[in-house]
Amino acid sequence: MPAQVPKRLRGRPKQTDNDISIQQTIIYTASTLFKEFGYESVTLQQIGKKCGVSKPTIYYHFASKADLFQAAMTTMLQNVRKITARMLEEAEHLQDGLVQLAAARLANPHGEIETMMREAEPLLEEAQIRAIREAEHQIHEVLALHFKLAMEQKIFREEDPFFLAEAFSTLMLMGNREHDSEKYESERVLAEKIVHFFLNGVTK
Amino acid sequence: MPAQVPKRLRGRPKQTDNDISIQQTIIYTASTLFKEFGYESVTLQQIGKKCGVSKPTIYYHFASKADLFQAAMTTMLQNVRKITARMLEEAEHLQDGLVQLAAARLANPHGEIETMMREAEPLLEEAQIRAIREAEHQIHEVLALHFKLAMEQKIFREEDPFFLAEAFSTLMLMGNREHDSEKYESERVLAEKIVHFFLNGVTK
Repeated sequence: MPAQVPKRLRGRPKQTDNDISIQQTIIYTASTLFKEFGYESVTLQQIGKKCGVSKPTIYYHFASKADLFQAAMTTMLQNVRKITARMLEEAEHLQDGLVQLAAARLANPHGEIETMMREAEPLLEEAQIRAIREAEHQIHEVLALHFKLAMEQKIFREEDPFFLAEAFSTLMLMGNREHDSEKYESERVLAEKIVHFFLNGVTK
Repeated sequence: MPAQVPKRLRGRPKQTDNDISIQQTIIYTASTLFKEFGYESVTLQQIGKKCGVSKPTIYYHFASKADLFQAAMTTMLQNVRKITARMLEEAEHLQDGLVQLAAARLANPHGEIETMMREAEPLLEEAQIRAIREAEHQIHEVLALHFKLAMEQKIFREEDPFFLAEAFSTLMLMGNREHDSEKYESERVLAEKIVHFFLNGVTK
């Protein structure tokens, strides 16, 4: 994947491999801290300290904390999109792929992203919010693509595939709460229950 | 409903009707402010100013901000439980009751409660968290009761009714995001789509 060079770097020397790896380290560290403490309370100083780079180095890669937040969120969401695509493509049957995907997503709850967004949104620019929402939408696009195929194969009933993608993603929030997850033996068991419900609903 | 007199008031004069209405005004105002700005940033001073009571008056009714937060959250959740019970009891068919309930809940998204809880949890006492989670659980109890009946009537397949209650509640989060709700003509349309999905799943 070619690194996208932010506009403000135009005219600066081309990014080296080392630059890219530092950038990724900053993004990874920022993601971890934002997830744990939320957007507002984390400072660039904290992020720099934790990954051993100076604040000017962070500013070399990101114009602002909001910019770094955008990068952290879109990177997380792109990873979810990649996992979604891989698991659904590699599975022999859609159902198996969905169970695998659900188990993976329940283990890494996505709900925090929604919480972080609510907190950060008033402090972000319109374009930053749009970029993050777009990265989220791309997860739904992958799901919708596979659901559309299942409709063409008459496995699924006719329905807006994006509605179903959103329903599936929303159900992944069931694994979000610590006090609840104890009720199920494992993410795998909960994943199977959710996919069975997703496919069959509740009526006989 | 008799007003529960907090322990710390023991020995003080019995609460009058006026006390109860002031208490409810404080709770209502606090709910609105916590929903809008989150737990941490709202002060008792702000709450008092907005509903026209002094800080000592708030402290007469609530031992602390955390106590008032607990009251605000459990009151909101108790209202959801009451609406759930009423709509499911009054409907001729479970499906109609679920659509009505979904439309009501989508119009008043419950997702904020989860976001507020995440933010507030580190600042609450164990007993306060438990009380709020218990109020939430009682919503699931009402749903589970009706789902269990539907299983006995062979309308629903056999499944843990609490799992289904949680799945239903989680799906209510689909109405949570402003940018998404524009996609559907109304809460009623989305409610019908969700309930149809809940009952039938996605397969043909």
